[in-house]
Amino acid sequence: MAKIVEFIPNFSEGSRQDVIDALVAEAKGVPGVILLDHSSDASHNRSVFTMVGDPDGVAEAAFRLVKLASEKIDMREHKGEHPRMGATDVVPFVPIQDVTMEECVALSKKVAERIWNELHIPSFLYESSASRPDRVNLAKVRKGQFEGMPEKLLQDEWAPDYGERKIHPTAGITAIGARPPLVAFNVNLDTDDIEIANAIAKAIRGSSGGYKHCKAIGVMLEDRNIAQVSMNMVDYEGTPLYRAFEAIRFEAERWGVRIIGSEIIGLTPAKALIDCADYYLKIEKFDYKKQVLENHLL
Amino acid sequence: MAKIVEFIPNFSEGSRQDVIDALVAEAKGVPGVILLDHSSDASHNRSVFTMVGDPDGVAEAAFRLVKLASEKIDMREHKGEHPRMGATDVVPFVPIQDVTMEECVALSKKVAERIWNELHIPSFLYESSASRPDRVNLAKVRKGQFEGMPEKLLQDEWAPDYGERKIHPTAGITAIGARPPLVAFNVNLDTDDIEIANAIAKAIRGSSGGYKHCKAIGVMLEDRNIAQVSMNMVDYEGTPLYRAFEAIRFEAERWGVRIIGSEIIGLTPAKALIDCADYYLKIEKFDYKKQVLENHLL
Repeated sequence: MAKIVEFIPNFSEGSRQDVIDALVAEAKGVPGVILLDHSSDASHNRSVFTMVGDPDGVAEAAFRLVKLASEKIDMREHKGEHPRMGATDVVPFVPIQDVTMEECVALSKKVAERIWNELHIPSFLYESSASRPDRVNLAKVRKGQFEGMPEKLLQDEWAPDYGERKIHPTAGITAIGARPPLVAFNVNLDTDDIEIANAIAKAIRGSSGGYKHCKAIGVMLEDRNIAQVSMNMVDYEGTPLYRAFEAIRFEAERWGVRIIGSEIIGLTPAKALIDCADYYLKIEKFDYKKQVLENHLL
Repeated sequence: MAKIVEFIPNFSEGSRQDVIDALVAEAKGVPGVILLDHSSDASHNRSVFTMVGDPDGVAEAAFRLVKLASEKIDMREHKGEHPRMGATDVVPFVPIQDVTMEECVALSKKVAERIWNELHIPSFLYESSASRPDRVNLAKVRKGQFEGMPEKLLQDEWAPDYGERKIHPTAGITAIGARPPLVAFNVNLDTDDIEIANAIAKAIRGSSGGYKHCKAIGVMLEDRNIAQVSMNMVDYEGTPLYRAFEAIRFEAERWGVRIIGSEIIGLTPAKALIDCADYYLKIEKFDYKKQVLENHLL
């Protein structure tokens, strides 16, 4: 089995097509790395790339993209709805296959060091790479955004993990870190009452006492007139999808509401779903790595 | 996505280690092909190799192995419990990824033609490659075994698909064909009554009116003193694993018996299990090829 790391750089450019095209071309030009998907949002003025590759390829690709973004994007002119603090705003590294979280943490630090040494762009380490507990959460790290960063970096507790206490004048500062794969998993209910979805979301999400690795909100699907529990499963090994699903089922029963379907948005690692089959089929001693044929081909 | 074909050659040698080693070395020496697993059984006097590769590599590996087996194995001296008719007894080709059944049928014919032209070993096409309905089933094709084949080949309906109406003097005749992937799936019951497992097996297997692509028998797990429904799911797209599992559940309820676990024996394609997760989680519009991350890496 080959070592495979996913990384999902977020760039603060979502409308200028020539800049997006240049980033795509750069992403496709690194040996050992594949661009799986990219999407740009003009109102957020932001692009998200999903890429995979071997650790060395991924480190090289991350550096080249951060460099190109710093040449093409001037944060002093950036406007957009999405919070942001750098031309390359955030770069998470995700262990996919035969790679530990520790290796991804090391990878994130290597990239952070190089972009400081060669590009003079400072960075914060976040998620599993965080140097202290209050840097785990990206929203906290990014608070103040590009405009507020010069002042924030001078506060005692907000020195960058790499670099000096001042932003790069045009590229700002970047958050770099390792985290588990995230699966976007939504469960649809046979009710048009958003309050029921909200109550269920509150019951199952970690922040309000539910499953630790589940983030959840209630949303209304206006076109179908049904309520949905919309989740980010931020660690499917820690909180498997079936566990959130079954918890939603029994919480919904409280209101006589049933689950009518679910959605996986975007990509999921195979194991997040095979773990569910393992549960429902009650498979004894299943060895995912050895028994799944495709794992011998990667 | 790369084209990937699995093939599972069965050789009529399960005890002479030097012959087995030579076959293993040959299997490992073909570019573009991987030997995933091999097992030998002395009382059956038979070895089974599990291999995968691109179509051209697989065709080449199959030819080389049939050639080597014909040089090392003399069927006139072969004794073993398992039915057999050739040094290489049977070679199934299985579409795994980005390959159609039709392509595997074409592959099986190409290999059959080459082993006749270059090695003068005749063959029957079986399963999806069969030239007529009574050749689909391997047991029917192999009936009479090595010793009965000279006479069988002279019968009107049993001319080989490739080659003349006589066996290779030492290598016999080989069955070659394309078939869907097979998943060995067993379901354990909380009863020590083998008759209940037998009755459930009869209810769910295709041959007695159950699911078309499910083969099933009842067996006793002596060490645990429980009965088991032991299945070969010979086409998990036609008869998904969850469907057999749920049918066993409701048949077992007839006797107040519960399912206490299941087993996957050996390898399974990821999709056989992901289809089950798709069912139990009620996922709407799941696109296996696009949404499973690993599919972009193969």
